Amino acid sequence: MVKVGVVGSTGYSGQELVDVLLKNPEVEVACLTARFDKKTQYADVYPRFKDRISLVCEDLDVGKVSAKCDVVFLALPHTVSMGFAQEFLKKGKKVIDLSADYRLPADVYQQWYSKEHSDKANIAKAVYGLPEINRDAIKSADLVANPGCYPTGVVLGLLPVIKDVQAKGASIIVDSKSGTSGAGRKASIPLSFTEVDENFKCYKANEHQHMPEIENVLSGICGAEVNVNFTPHLLPVRRGILSTIYVPHEGLPSEDKLHKLFSERFEDEPFVRVKPLGSLPELADVAYTNFCDIGIKVAKGMLIIVTVIDNLLKGASGQAVQNMNIMCGIDEKAGLM
Amino acid sequence: MVKVGVVGSTGYSGQELVDVLLKNPEVEVACLTARFDKKTQYADVYPRFKDRISLVCEDLDVGKVSAKCDVVFLALPHTVSMGFAQEFLKKGKKVIDLSADYRLPADVYQQWYSKEHSDKANIAKAVYGLPEINRDAIKSADLVANPGCYPTGVVLGLLPVIKDVQAKGASIIVDSKSGTSGAGRKASIPLSFTEVDENFKCYKANEHQHMPEIENVLSGICGAEVNVNFTPHLLPVRRGILSTIYVPHEGLPSEDKLHKLFSERFEDEPFVRVKPLGSLPELADVAYTNFCDIGIKVAKGMLIIVTVIDNLLKGASGQAVQNMNIMCGIDEKAGLM
Amino acid sequence: MVKVGVVGSTGYSGQELVDVLLKNPEVEVACLTARFDKKTQYADVYPRFKDRISLVCEDLDVGKVSAKCDVVFLALPHTVSMGFAQEFLKKGKKVIDLSADYRLPADVYQQWYSKEHSDKANIAKAVYGLPEINRDAIKSADLVANPGCYPTGVVLGLLPVIKDVQAKGASIIVDSKSGTSGAGRKASIPLSFTEVDENFKCYKANEHQHMPEIENVLSGICGAEVNVNFTPHLLPVRRGILSTIYVPHEGLPSEDKLHKLFSERFEDEPFVRVKPLGSLPELADVAYTNFCDIGIKVAKGMLIIVTVIDNLLKGASGQAVQNMNIMCGIDEKAGLM
Amino acid sequence: MVKVGVVGSTGYSGQELVDVLLKNPEVEVACLTARFDKKTQYADVYPRFKDRISLVCEDLDVGKVSAKCDVVFLALPHTVSMGFAQEFLKKGKKVIDLSADYRLPADVYQQWYSKEHSDKANIAKAVYGLPEINRDAIKSADLVANPGCYPTGVVLGLLPVIKDVQAKGASIIVDSKSGTSGAGRKASIPLSFTEVDENFKCYKANEHQHMPEIENVLSGICGAEVNVNFTPHLLPVRRGILSTIYVPHEGLPSEDKLHKLFSERFEDEPFVRVKPLGSLPELADVAYTNFCDIGIKVAKGMLIIVTVIDNLLKGASGQAVQNMNIMCGIDEKAGLM
Repeated sequence: MVKVGVVGSTGYSGQELVDVLLKNPEVEVACLTARFDKKTQYADVYPRFKDRISLVCEDLDVGKVSAKCDVVFLALPHTVSMGFAQEFLKKGKKVIDLSADYRLPADVYQQWYSKEHSDKANIAKAVYGLPEINRDAIKSADLVANPGCYPTGVVLGLLPVIKDVQAKGASIIVDSKSGTSGAGRKASIPLSFTEVDENFKCYKANEHQHMPEIENVLSGICGAEVNVNFTPHLLPVRRGILSTIYVPHEGLPSEDKLHKLFSERFEDEPFVRVKPLGSLPELADVAYTNFCDIGIKVAKGMLIIVTVIDNLLKGASGQAVQNMNIMCGIDEKAGLM
Repeated sequence: MVKVGVVGSTGYSGQELVDVLLKNPEVEVACLTARFDKKTQYADVYPRFKDRISLVCEDLDVGKVSAKCDVVFLALPHTVSMGFAQEFLKKGKKVIDLSADYRLPADVYQQWYSKEHSDKANIAKAVYGLPEINRDAIKSADLVANPGCYPTGVVLGLLPVIKDVQAKGASIIVDSKSGTSGAGRKASIPLSFTEVDENFKCYKANEHQHMPEIENVLSGICGAEVNVNFTPHLLPVRRGILSTIYVPHEGLPSEDKLHKLFSERFEDEPFVRVKPLGSLPELADVAYTNFCDIGIKVAKGMLIIVTVIDNLLKGASGQAVQNMNIMCGIDEKAGLM
Repeated sequence: MVKVGVVGSTGYSGQELVDVLLKNPEVEVACLTARFDKKTQYADVYPRFKDRISLVCEDLDVGKVSAKCDVVFLALPHTVSMGFAQEFLKKGKKVIDLSADYRLPADVYQQWYSKEHSDKANIAKAVYGLPEINRDAIKSADLVANPGCYPTGVVLGLLPVIKDVQAKGASIIVDSKSGTSGAGRKASIPLSFTEVDENFKCYKANEHQHMPEIENVLSGICGAEVNVNFTPHLLPVRRGILSTIYVPHEGLPSEDKLHKLFSERFEDEPFVRVKPLGSLPELADVAYTNFCDIGIKVAKGMLIIVTVIDNLLKGASGQAVQNMNIMCGIDEKAGLM
Repeated sequence: MVKVGVVGSTGYSGQELVDVLLKNPEVEVACLTARFDKKTQYADVYPRFKDRISLVCEDLDVGKVSAKCDVVFLALPHTVSMGFAQEFLKKGKKVIDLSADYRLPADVYQQWYSKEHSDKANIAKAVYGLPEINRDAIKSADLVANPGCYPTGVVLGLLPVIKDVQAKGASIIVDSKSGTSGAGRKASIPLSFTEVDENFKCYKANEHQHMPEIENVLSGICGAEVNVNFTPHLLPVRRGILSTIYVPHEGLPSEDKLHKLFSERFEDEPFVRVKPLGSLPELADVAYTNFCDIGIKVAKGMLIIVTVIDNLLKGASGQAVQNMNIMCGIDEKAGLM
């Protein structure tokens, strides 16, 4: 039985984390932190947890939380998380950080998150928690940087071909579409129902902070610089990301061989499913699951790769628990099927 | 050509007002107020108005606005509006107030809006702007209190029978369902897309500020106290209110006769349409129109009345322009068909 | 390990049943029937099941299905189900029927489903599968008539007070709002996205086939006739039913006492949760769960009861598995938390 | 006063056409055809037209329709329309065809619509009804082929640069996202609310029949072959298309100069609006309008062009009326502002 704490349990990732952890038979949720003026039952704030959990929300006290947990999940805002991660590491806890604070080199981080990193020492120790590329390193990691939602789907989709694509210097276009929960739980006019419903737009075209994360991971895989043209869009759905990725086909294997390549690459992966040729994935296939589904098609000179994930699960909290399972030697799928 | 000003032009009612006024061939939109730090084109803030209007947003200066307009629409928050209405009246302007500030007696207002009324003198002069009951008074009014969205649909639905119902002391149940734009344009977690989409709830059951407004208008019609049990719900749609109204049928005419009663009552009304027996109205029938559609059915001891409106048009800005047309002697339908 | 078969596995209830059964550690899904021209993997038709189940869809052959299963779920259309239920019973199988075929007396059935019942003998043996009223009978039942979606939420909401209400002869108004999956998986213009989205309407007011089911169950509980005025509405959401129930308060206990009554009545029920006074439930609280949440409020002479369920779970497939767990002596919550 | 007939008035384009025509002060809607078994008021079928039009639906009799109208709109299915267009032309009527039947050369048509063209003679006479490229030809046309919804937004977005892009042989990627009304009014499981809501998918990647239309128009402009990689997606919204178009920037002018180029190209166009640099258009900006809004951005080696239209207006019926206004010498904007 792994004792876990969820620090920052009130956002969408935090709530989803609690939900997934409660379904994991190998886990005891021992501690939840959330700021309230008075003693507050977690289930009173989020009624869907009534009769499922009886913990009271605690203040974020590193000592008290550490005394109760073996593993700590940090579901805190970017730039806040790093202040606590180092404290929990000092206490000998395993830390899984859902923020962006340990995903990038310090200089890139500062450029995109407008703040100097306050825990540079641990960036190097942090393992990027995408099991499909780093499973072995995750096993022995003390600090896992849980990937961003867009990067998870995009990197998995490019994984089988990225070295070839990088080698031939081809341009990569990523046209991503995300549901609203990816923006977090916050009061905001542009995120209000009246503004989002029946609407659709692109935002932060080539200015989104997940672009350098995608490039950093892909460059690491290739051992050489990779650039992507990344345009995210906001969908009027609650959950899910679909990315349509365009790569010039010239110089790559035939569609059949590419499909074989993709199928073999993910054959043993419990949470990546490759669609048969002729069919492409859709959001509903992966909603409320930890799967990433991938389909490919070659047409008019392009390899088109389409990937879908549930941004709160494979794109955040499901993947975080998958990482925890790996770190703790539990069945990787526990709580996730 | 009537010269009009819209004071508070940035909320949903304000925007809709501008949209409707631009379609009205008898109107010149002469002035829009909205607070911005620097000189700002209205169409730059709301791109849907680009190439349709070229006004710059002005600060709310009663003198300047009055110099440009004959009629002033106030689309300001409740409790704010009354401060300006009296000023514009002093300047001799005709005022149509979309807030609740002149819809209720001062004591009831204070009870439900938590603020003492600061312009009691003008409450008595204000005409409640529901043309279907007050057309003649509106013609000569200087100050029109534009009705609330829920009251518009509920009062119209009960109009043909309310005297009978009141006389026999029957209980009235109003189960209303509203889209999100009725809550206004604001940053709020409960109004965010992620919370509202795929969700549905009732709120403020018998505690909504439109309940006393409904009761006040109906009591005025009957010359005797009317009470309603009023439970509003929040629909995951942007626009529209559907109210399902239950009245005990005992003591009322037969379904056929009731239908005749309804049809005759609204025969000459340009914006109320009665459905044939056997069919009930739905939101889509009135979306983006100034119509109120009404259907009735007698079953299992109850008269069921169903009414639908677009809350931003017949429930707010469309009705405001209908009132303006009446006040100014223009075709009542101008800009609204 | 209970071996189960799902007959009619391609509708929304059928798919949800497979999903829930796959999560139940005490169950082996041994057989799925669905009509296809050629040999078809279930997971190829419904991609969300890929890597979760590897069964091939079978034709509906009572002998073959019986050879593989201990319990058979029938997720067939009304009027079709009764033809097969009797066959499976003859083979000694336990049957859980998700259709309406065994929920009503034969004469009432014929009146509302326009077909004479072809298996009258088994109607009397069938147990109405609402565990909160029939748990003991379900334990030893061979044939369970799984309740309709609307009746589940409405009956549970009225349960603690229905005898009192019936005794004083009070009228009951049920204003229900349902998501679209309740209408089943079918090609239909009125159910198309373009027609349903941004729309809302009531339908079949006091003509819905679930009305006699509600009345039949409530009358059974009271040992006396109960009538309800039942108006369902179609919500633009995929899953969930919220019912707002109005009962005259006169003659009933105070709000506090009523709340105590509700809380005590459901204290030991694993899937019914009563909200604290002052708060009412919403769809999101129960989405993707088997819970029924209930809240009450007394205001303006009425007891208002609000209940919510996920129509595909507590309103259909979740409740069916709950019934199976009870019939098979398994933990009632297995697969459902 | 132009007398018009709408042939096929019951689909979404047909209804929208009637709506727009009723707002056009220069038009008299003289005739609507739609198949019904008995005499049926149009407004009884589509309640939103009640009190706005009192025509009875007629059978499609070319002679009778011709006797009443000067201009005939054909809102019939592809492959059906061409049979009637030639008949109306013979009667001397001006014809605006909303189907695809006159948009393509006969051989390309046959390849994509699986039917040999039965009116090849008139294909050559038909003018492609995109006023921004063919205004003069439309003025004197007897037969206008009203453009497809995707092509309208895509062609307008590429217009200012297509010759340059073609000349340098650059690849063009078009990632389009459309609302559901574009698929028409029909009973279909994949178009049902339960399947579409909270979902998102791409479909017919490089197999959509609008791809050859886009290529045909662009090739015509360039006088040389243009190819596009075209991937449409289905959005859970009712109306609107947003296309994100990627063109390699190398060899093109700077972002500033491109913006100037776009602004000047559309300066005199009443229904095309170019966004200021730094902002991109969204669906809500053009919903329920005949505008096409265009924004551009240069980033990471790509010129990104984003265009939005309301698929039922600028993408179908609005544009059809714009064409009619031009053909009849009426103000081009009549009924459309």
